[in-house]
Amino acid sequence: MRIGMATWADLADGERHALLARPAAAGDDGLRRAVAGIVQQVRDEGDAALRTLTSKLDGPLLRDFAVDDGEISAAVDSLRPRQLEAIDAAIANVRAFHEAQAAPPLAVETVPGVRCERITHAIDAVGLYVPAGTAPLPSAAIMLAVPAGIAGCPTRILCTPPQLDGRADPAVVVAATRAGVTSIFKIGGAQAIAAMAYGTASVPKVDKIFGPGNAWVTSAKSLVSAAADGAAIDMPAGPSEVLVIADQDANPAFVAADLLSQAEHGPDSQVLLFTDCPSLAENVQQQLGTQLPLLRRRDIAARSLRHSHIVIVADVDEAVQLSNRYAPEHLILQCAGARELVDRVRNAGSVFLGPWAPESVGDYCSGTNHVLPTYGYARSYSGLSVDQFQRQMTVQQLSRSGLAALAPTVTTLAELEGLEAHARAVTIRLETRA
Amino acid sequence: MRIGMATWADLADGERHALLARPAAAGDDGLRRAVAGIVQQVRDEGDAALRTLTSKLDGPLLRDFAVDDGEISAAVDSLRPRQLEAIDAAIANVRAFHEAQAAPPLAVETVPGVRCERITHAIDAVGLYVPAGTAPLPSAAIMLAVPAGIAGCPTRILCTPPQLDGRADPAVVVAATRAGVTSIFKIGGAQAIAAMAYGTASVPKVDKIFGPGNAWVTSAKSLVSAAADGAAIDMPAGPSEVLVIADQDANPAFVAADLLSQAEHGPDSQVLLFTDCPSLAENVQQQLGTQLPLLRRRDIAARSLRHSHIVIVADVDEAVQLSNRYAPEHLILQCAGARELVDRVRNAGSVFLGPWAPESVGDYCSGTNHVLPTYGYARSYSGLSVDQFQRQMTVQQLSRSGLAALAPTVTTLAELEGLEAHARAVTIRLETRA
Repeated sequence: MRIGMATWADLADGERHALLARPAAAGDDGLRRAVAGIVQQVRDEGDAALRTLTSKLDGPLLRDFAVDDGEISAAVDSLRPRQLEAIDAAIANVRAFHEAQAAPPLAVETVPGVRCERITHAIDAVGLYVPAGTAPLPSAAIMLAVPAGIAGCPTRILCTPPQLDGRADPAVVVAATRAGVTSIFKIGGAQAIAAMAYGTASVPKVDKIFGPGNAWVTSAKSLVSAAADGAAIDMPAGPSEVLVIADQDANPAFVAADLLSQAEHGPDSQVLLFTDCPSLAENVQQQLGTQLPLLRRRDIAARSLRHSHIVIVADVDEAVQLSNRYAPEHLILQCAGARELVDRVRNAGSVFLGPWAPESVGDYCSGTNHVLPTYGYARSYSGLSVDQFQRQMTVQQLSRSGLAALAPTVTTLAELEGLEAHARAVTIRLETRA
Repeated sequence: MRIGMATWADLADGERHALLARPAAAGDDGLRRAVAGIVQQVRDEGDAALRTLTSKLDGPLLRDFAVDDGEISAAVDSLRPRQLEAIDAAIANVRAFHEAQAAPPLAVETVPGVRCERITHAIDAVGLYVPAGTAPLPSAAIMLAVPAGIAGCPTRILCTPPQLDGRADPAVVVAATRAGVTSIFKIGGAQAIAAMAYGTASVPKVDKIFGPGNAWVTSAKSLVSAAADGAAIDMPAGPSEVLVIADQDANPAFVAADLLSQAEHGPDSQVLLFTDCPSLAENVQQQLGTQLPLLRRRDIAARSLRHSHIVIVADVDEAVQLSNRYAPEHLILQCAGARELVDRVRNAGSVFLGPWAPESVGDYCSGTNHVLPTYGYARSYSGLSVDQFQRQMTVQQLSRSGLAALAPTVTTLAELEGLEAHARAVTIRLETRA
């Protein structure tokens, strides 16, 4: 299997634009209507709707959705010691990086007698969604639950689809429990998002919903986040993607392995390689041909590679410029001077430097979060971090003399805006004996 | 004029719920369709559409939308020295508080040989919207442009509707210029939001749009933020609101003035007073009756007061609990121990402590930002701050030994998730001679 190749200098403007564009996201009205129906059903009928939908869509008929202590113990028992160790090691590294993110409290006396503060609060209740479709994702449970715990959100619930046997994926259960969620519910898809956004007898209503998901989950998140009585969400979602910038020094086997590790996520994943070295490009093609057939998920990866590209560029500088236009979720720099090159990277979710930093370390356990802006959203959104589980409230305290100092500014601006009562709230105070 | 009064203890559950609910937001399909039409027209026809729409909706027929140096000079000349001083003083205080918000760079060695960093970048291009309907808002220009400048966004454009004479409001022009926007365009309403989200020949496309606006602006922001090729937005919007908690020590004239300064914003503003002191409640009613008729905007304020409430509570603790349920945009604490009470406030946009902190100081010049979460969004959103004009990108750099240390964790988690290529991206490296 070879993937499409192009030389940037040879492309017309339209071809260049098309190459840096993402495959169109399905704007499927039928899906949106179906999701809206599910959300309404959950709002109207609560747990009864969850039971019906879970039986219909996931298979099992559940009486209770919560994972109980017995199921947690069984999940722990079902994993091997090295699997438990891997979960603990990933949690430890993610915790180390995220604990360093705590925002210090802020207090500034902007004018004598005018003290302004910023106070950080955890969001009261957060809902975490962990998919379990073609692959259950214990790593997603870690990436969501660890920052929620560090932020201090009192209620941290997690929803994940049940298996046919009525249990949740044991690795997801263990990862979620060890990363400190307060409860786990076996509910999947749009119905899980609806349950968390509006609450049911079993599932507490949350203020904000986090986590990846398929088109149903994404559509439901978008729907509930647009409703004032719904829930906020972490960020808009799109297919996962990687962009590799490599030069003649890069090892083509490493580059091919990185492209494949992204491609196996799903048929809609996109992988790009920008290189100034045509022989590297050719060697990567050969490595793809060698490595792809060895993969169990080779069919998925091959479908992803079909809409992926290798682009020959003039030099690494041009590659970085194009990367900034594309704004990749993951950017791997396998080239000389990678460290210095980072200073020129503006739009990317997470960057991997040098030959020893495959994307999969970020997916699991380097410590950075793997919930990242896709589909060009890195131009305006950040990856998940502790502060997205928090809110900041400002506070101002004034002395009488502080208010007197601000008075001319308030009354003059109020006059310019025609808001007389704004001025009077100041003057009526200063006309009063202290 | 008296506003509605109730005693919390006497209310049935349904009445309590209704009292803490916001007036329903207009879910007007007609408006949404009209806005979608305007946005499409601007995408299709660019500046020509802007000219047609501006002439039709705002009056003037403009050839150029950009405010030029001549118009800026004329705007400066048209203001009095004390007005220029007020604008400068507000900018200085807002700058002092927002400069202290800069996020320090972050680097953590989570495991020997695994270095994780978080790097903050300004968003490349931001669009600021400043309304100029019943009241032009130079203060909004300050609250948007100052943090955008501190964040370091290279492109910071501002749109504001033109007056009938084809000029922008001079105070808005001066405030925007002194607060450092890179250009000002005389475009209003949904057409301004569309121009900034998609770009035209005159108006650069931006990555994120900030600022308040009427129902058309709000609907357009919501629309463009849902499109992957549109623009992100600051936060969802709702009518402005204040909640005052006052006890027997509060000055009823101050409380009434604060309620009125919120009520004059617009007929959909909501003001609430929670007090444990029935005589204070009565005295505030009397003060409203005295102060309201003196206001030029008394008709607007009176309409707002019609759906506002005074609620008698058992004590200040109960008031804070109810306030946390309501999650007000502005919370004024005019009661004993206000400073200590802040520790129990969880959900609020900005808090004003004590008798000398009217909301209008926060609206203009204490230093805090006046763009705040309304309509209960304080449960999950923060007010505007420098970091919302920035994004955070993570970086990981590994040595070969660092990768070796992570390898068992990656390969084991990849196995649990069935993602073999994720494991191979690590093992293929470690099998290679360094």
